[in-house]
Amino acid sequence: MNTLDRTATAAAFPLGGIGTGNVSIGARGELRDWELANAPGKGSHLPFTFFAIRTARTGAEPVTRVLESRLVPPHTGDQGYYAGRLAGLPRLRESRMRGEYPLLSVDFADDDLGVDVALTAFTPLVPLDADASGIPCAILRYTVTNPSSRPVDVTVVGSLANPVGITGRNVFHFPEFAGQPRNEWRDDGRLRGIVFGTDLDEHDPRFGSVALTTTDADTTAKPQWLSGFWQDGVQVFWDDLRADGRLDAETEFSLDRPPYPDWFTRLRVGSLGSAARLPGHATHTFEFVLTWHFPNRPRAWQGNIRLDDTHAGEVVRNHYATRFKDAWHVAEHLAAELPGLEAATRTFHRALFGGTLPPEIVDAAAANLTVLRSTTCLRLEGGVFAAWEGSFEQAGSCEGTCTHVWNYAQTAAFLFPELERSARRTEFLHETRPDGRMNFRANSVFGNAPWDFHAAVDGQLGAVIRLYREWRFTGDDAFLAELYPGARRALDYAFTAWDADGDGVLDSEQHNTYDIEFFGPNSLANSMFAAALHAGARMAGHLGDAAAATRYREAAHRCAERTDALLFNGEYYEQRIDDVDEHRYQYGRGCLSDQLFGQLLAHVAGLGHVLPAAHVRSAVAAVHRYNFRRELTNHHSVQRTYALDDEAGLVLCSWPHGGRPRIPFVYSDEVWTGIEYQVAAHLIYEGLVEEGRSIVRAVRDRHDGRRRNPWNEVECGNHYARSLASWAPLLALSGADYDAPTATLTIRPRLDAPEVRSIFTTGTGWGTFAVDADGARLTLHAGSLDLATLTIDHATSGRLQATGVRLEAGDTLGIPARPTPSEEP
Amino acid sequence: MNTLDRTATAAAFPLGGIGTGNVSIGARGELRDWELANAPGKGSHLPFTFFAIRTARTGAEPVTRVLESRLVPPHTGDQGYYAGRLAGLPRLRESRMRGEYPLLSVDFADDDLGVDVALTAFTPLVPLDADASGIPCAILRYTVTNPSSRPVDVTVVGSLANPVGITGRNVFHFPEFAGQPRNEWRDDGRLRGIVFGTDLDEHDPRFGSVALTTTDADTTAKPQWLSGFWQDGVQVFWDDLRADGRLDAETEFSLDRPPYPDWFTRLRVGSLGSAARLPGHATHTFEFVLTWHFPNRPRAWQGNIRLDDTHAGEVVRNHYATRFKDAWHVAEHLAAELPGLEAATRTFHRALFGGTLPPEIVDAAAANLTVLRSTTCLRLEGGVFAAWEGSFEQAGSCEGTCTHVWNYAQTAAFLFPELERSARRTEFLHETRPDGRMNFRANSVFGNAPWDFHAAVDGQLGAVIRLYREWRFTGDDAFLAELYPGARRALDYAFTAWDADGDGVLDSEQHNTYDIEFFGPNSLANSMFAAALHAGARMAGHLGDAAAATRYREAAHRCAERTDALLFNGEYYEQRIDDVDEHRYQYGRGCLSDQLFGQLLAHVAGLGHVLPAAHVRSAVAAVHRYNFRRELTNHHSVQRTYALDDEAGLVLCSWPHGGRPRIPFVYSDEVWTGIEYQVAAHLIYEGLVEEGRSIVRAVRDRHDGRRRNPWNEVECGNHYARSLASWAPLLALSGADYDAPTATLTIRPRLDAPEVRSIFTTGTGWGTFAVDADGARLTLHAGSLDLATLTIDHATSGRLQATGVRLEAGDTLGIPARPTPSEEP
Repeated sequence: MNTLDRTATAAAFPLGGIGTGNVSIGARGELRDWELANAPGKGSHLPFTFFAIRTARTGAEPVTRVLESRLVPPHTGDQGYYAGRLAGLPRLRESRMRGEYPLLSVDFADDDLGVDVALTAFTPLVPLDADASGIPCAILRYTVTNPSSRPVDVTVVGSLANPVGITGRNVFHFPEFAGQPRNEWRDDGRLRGIVFGTDLDEHDPRFGSVALTTTDADTTAKPQWLSGFWQDGVQVFWDDLRADGRLDAETEFSLDRPPYPDWFTRLRVGSLGSAARLPGHATHTFEFVLTWHFPNRPRAWQGNIRLDDTHAGEVVRNHYATRFKDAWHVAEHLAAELPGLEAATRTFHRALFGGTLPPEIVDAAAANLTVLRSTTCLRLEGGVFAAWEGSFEQAGSCEGTCTHVWNYAQTAAFLFPELERSARRTEFLHETRPDGRMNFRANSVFGNAPWDFHAAVDGQLGAVIRLYREWRFTGDDAFLAELYPGARRALDYAFTAWDADGDGVLDSEQHNTYDIEFFGPNSLANSMFAAALHAGARMAGHLGDAAAATRYREAAHRCAERTDALLFNGEYYEQRIDDVDEHRYQYGRGCLSDQLFGQLLAHVAGLGHVLPAAHVRSAVAAVHRYNFRRELTNHHSVQRTYALDDEAGLVLCSWPHGGRPRIPFVYSDEVWTGIEYQVAAHLIYEGLVEEGRSIVRAVRDRHDGRRRNPWNEVECGNHYARSLASWAPLLALSGADYDAPTATLTIRPRLDAPEVRSIFTTGTGWGTFAVDADGARLTLHAGSLDLATLTIDHATSGRLQATGVRLEAGDTLGIPARPTPSEEP
Repeated sequence: MNTLDRTATAAAFPLGGIGTGNVSIGARGELRDWELANAPGKGSHLPFTFFAIRTARTGAEPVTRVLESRLVPPHTGDQGYYAGRLAGLPRLRESRMRGEYPLLSVDFADDDLGVDVALTAFTPLVPLDADASGIPCAILRYTVTNPSSRPVDVTVVGSLANPVGITGRNVFHFPEFAGQPRNEWRDDGRLRGIVFGTDLDEHDPRFGSVALTTTDADTTAKPQWLSGFWQDGVQVFWDDLRADGRLDAETEFSLDRPPYPDWFTRLRVGSLGSAARLPGHATHTFEFVLTWHFPNRPRAWQGNIRLDDTHAGEVVRNHYATRFKDAWHVAEHLAAELPGLEAATRTFHRALFGGTLPPEIVDAAAANLTVLRSTTCLRLEGGVFAAWEGSFEQAGSCEGTCTHVWNYAQTAAFLFPELERSARRTEFLHETRPDGRMNFRANSVFGNAPWDFHAAVDGQLGAVIRLYREWRFTGDDAFLAELYPGARRALDYAFTAWDADGDGVLDSEQHNTYDIEFFGPNSLANSMFAAALHAGARMAGHLGDAAAATRYREAAHRCAERTDALLFNGEYYEQRIDDVDEHRYQYGRGCLSDQLFGQLLAHVAGLGHVLPAAHVRSAVAAVHRYNFRRELTNHHSVQRTYALDDEAGLVLCSWPHGGRPRIPFVYSDEVWTGIEYQVAAHLIYEGLVEEGRSIVRAVRDRHDGRRRNPWNEVECGNHYARSLASWAPLLALSGADYDAPTATLTIRPRLDAPEVRSIFTTGTGWGTFAVDADGARLTLHAGSLDLATLTIDHATSGRLQATGVRLEAGDTLGIPARPTPSEEP
């Protein structure tokens, strides 16, 4: 990850847990994009909400600054910068942001401040623990160093506008509220700070609380600024801080006399400061903990696809709200647990960023973890996982944990498997109809009526593969047994619904992730079908449904054989259709980037090749050859645009040998990071490592903080779920593959390097491995691991094996390389 | 005006007439900010609305490009660039924009196109003719040059989404409509093109039409693209254009079969092309005329101040809609009249930009002319002028032609005096109550109930001075006689309402343009009072109201004498108040930039010094010394921000000798271009030319296209009325002053240069003058001029005079300098 200066205005590093909502930090170190209620709000600004620093050195004028670097043009705005921006206060000259998700640092530089100051920020992220990774909080730590030999008095102050109950913004850009926000000072001896509450009913969808707290002893606070018709409060606050670095609580509510009209401002701002005298050359850290608690959300998607919203008037609780009673409670939890949570977070960060996998691979995998902690994902009471496809600026995009989009996601399956298991439960227990047709958007999570639409061939069959993936990662047979009947119905549905002529190759009208229907045989559907059949066969066999196992296995081979015969053109797989223009939105002789997506899912799930390996390799090489563009300056696309001009990217389809339909499918000329990642991973699985890496580099180069946000890959919405395919290149390159049913961990790194160090995860624990010419080491960082067989196989070490391995957190297993023959006597 | 490359993303050059609404052109040559219905819509984008060019050279592949330069990062957006942006189509490498309002040119550069292409765009602007300057149109001319010796076939195509009836945007960023837009091809022999209409009732507020036309003979068109669930239309359009440079009309409405659901797209896009074969080294101009006609608007302000909106359900017609029956009619008018209109526009442009006044002075005066032609200003049926203070992004800002904001405006008074005369009529005939209190926001323009609020001391007294200015510019005694009774009531009101102790100095609670009340004597109010009294005295005298004339003249002297004695601190004028914190929002011992704003209005109106000249000069010098900041990096302002960091600007107030109130007036630390211009003009009037110019340079440097839009100076809204003070520095520097009652034109340039050439205007005609050591020349470009006395007085020429001058349009009068004594024999 490169360092970003203040001109990287697209950069916004999100803080917040899984299913909790976010606030982000921009490249100037500023707080931005307030989404604490886990509803999209890109661009939403909270007035007067910022950190400030005051330094007073002996013999020098005190200096007070907003703890952000300077604003960057354009300085447009229909009222200049509105007062809430405080753009007219002095800021620090420059900043350098470095984000390695989940850790952020921003170093500030200034000529007048007289001290060095840096921000560290994160929200705990603990692999395999969605609860510990789902705390509604942001840890904000300002580390101040006194470079001189003289002491300096330093105050760091955080100010926050009470955000509870915001309904919108008026023409002056100030928020308007339902209910009356209320600020309250609290000090329980260990923890002190401001609680930002409301007088709304606790069942109101907007009800909630926010707390800005510290465990520092020497605090200074103005829990509630003066309210008024004008902005008296901020003038008095700033002058108070500048005067002596200590804040006084206001003795009056307002300098305007009551009675107040209805439209009198409801804005309530509060400030919490921490003060310290730093001796010469000393460093002091000012820690602030921002926590929040918005327990309710409407019991309905209320989305743009317009699924039934019957219960929209009711509320459902967020999962975290069943663990914490309010924002202060969250702060108390952190006051007790933060050291452990932070240690786990930092161990995870080191496991990713301290390994030897190429930086673009690690960066892609880590940066898109933000999707799981963004407004795209919900965790409802009972731990139910539900998600949008992505997040529009001010609303969720495309509701219902869409099977054909989430099909691409790998991150949660290998880091927070309980989330994907919850999604499979929804799909197979609630959304698969008696006839096997799966609603590809789930409405059961809210108890609302199912969505009636086409089945999605890719999403539905992918769900079967992903069920297999989830079971294989955890070995939870009860889970499998419970969901298997639905999976079997879903799989059987394909034979009748999508195979018109019964030849074992899907060929009828096939709705898919391009939001249109393909007609005739194509390898997107059939690679998915073959992989799902193999997965189904193994699950059926495991559960003793031998007839089904045999039937699926035979069908898988038949499908593969005929698909290959029908569609492989000697170079890649085509769509077979007599007249490519008989139906709109086909691709015919085109080279589809997703042509072997089912095969990629099979690789990730450890199913191996489901189509002839040589043809698969040829086809993914062709995808790279034809669809990956080093630049797009002369690309003609009338569709949505995610890459342009001098940027590189993988288009969804191309027609290297002609045959482009008059109107090809509606996204054919687009560039989607989710597909780029799945193709990159596939290339790596097939040994085309440099080709795969080149695609991942292109994606991440496009997300450089100036062009786009490194922590937000967009498709139909921000934080788009498909970008979670970004864990797959890491899986492919590290080569770690865990099979719980056989208690086997196999690590076959595909990275050609003298030493490979990387993360691995299993359903019961996670850790890191290192392999080089001397052998291998496996360290378990959390959980436990009970392996019948451990195999580590890399060019430098050769094939190393251990059996009967049992590790607990903190254990390291070393396997020395067998001496090479030349070293023998 | 500097040349702007494509990174000047803040630049948007508005096209459109007075009271007609706008569309703007950005630095990439793109159409942006669609506000055709004269309602604010900054940032509003019309899908698929763009120009394209196709070139085909013998022996080379044809090249088709969007006629814009490439997009500039950040490329953020919650769906990438939505399809309507067509960001995925190839664009030209670079562009150079040069805007000298009202003329715009954009030169494009590209490596593949094989021809040179440049855009020229304007809307006719004719001084002293608000109708000719109020045509709802944009002339767009693409000039293509073939640099090679081989012929090239060129097509230029404009595409437009029918914008009639747009109600908002859906989550996919596509517009939604009231009514069904309808496109229609029309060719009347002289004129051909597409009419974009609607099935809305003609009385619907959203009813209207748009026409994209050309007089070129060789047109090619697709009047209506294919409609569909997906974007078939644009794919077919683009492929059609690329194929042969000729467009075919679609034979089908849609490739989707009826019946269509309610929510089927209502978007209707049409394209009009013009084709030409350019021989080697030939140049051809492709001219497109965009006209529009949105006749109706709600009969109420519906603004944020919430004046009575009783008639909001009715519509009132825009003035232009009483001249033109629809958009095609406008196009017909232009087909006949454009040569004359363009000649007048170019003459005006040359008069401004071809003179010798410093570029920043000309640029400031010209660029802010856009306010008059922006959504800030309305012209209602009957020619009634009404205006907002400015324009919020999506709504007008602060309704009612606010007297205390429009107080600063000078441009219309000297270029389109009928607009200001209309405003005075409203103020003195309809908004001045029997007791003389003037509603400082007018609601009578819609026939709605008057606003009941404080009177504004500066706005009300300024209106009296401005009535004098209007009468003096035209000599229209009937106009004066009609409005004088109201003006007299308004002026008399000051004696009773604002002079608590009857000593002739205003001293009680004084609401003013800072949206608060000053208490006690201050020179903002009293300079305004003194000037208004002088104006009142002359008007009264002229009308034979001798008693009032005497009373006003005596009061003016008493006010000036006592104000000077009370408030002048030896350096500048203060506010006299015992305890500056007894009331909030005062300035006390501060140096207020507006402290002599009444004196500036007196200068502009030819009233001369109304306070002691030496003290006035000292005070404005102090304003410059204390309030003009070369940079603002360490400025502490918690207010709105219009200038920051390394930018220079004039703050509204400062306290060079201490005494800053705890809470000074709520804009005291802000930087407003309107005040910068009035102070700059005043400095120039007082002979402090370089000081005045330095302020104007600072303003325009802040509006450099990257930081801010050169054609939009913002305060509480875009295109803020106060920025129309920008004509005053030009008046002051050119020194042209016309007094119709005495038929006197005096030109005393304050520019210290060997030759001064500049524009001058009078109520009956306008022209240019030139003066140098050899003498002076006066050319009348339009109207007529009948002068008893013409005086031209400059250091180089000495005092030149002519009497009994009568000029018609096109006439030039030369006055040779008297030979200097040394040249005599």
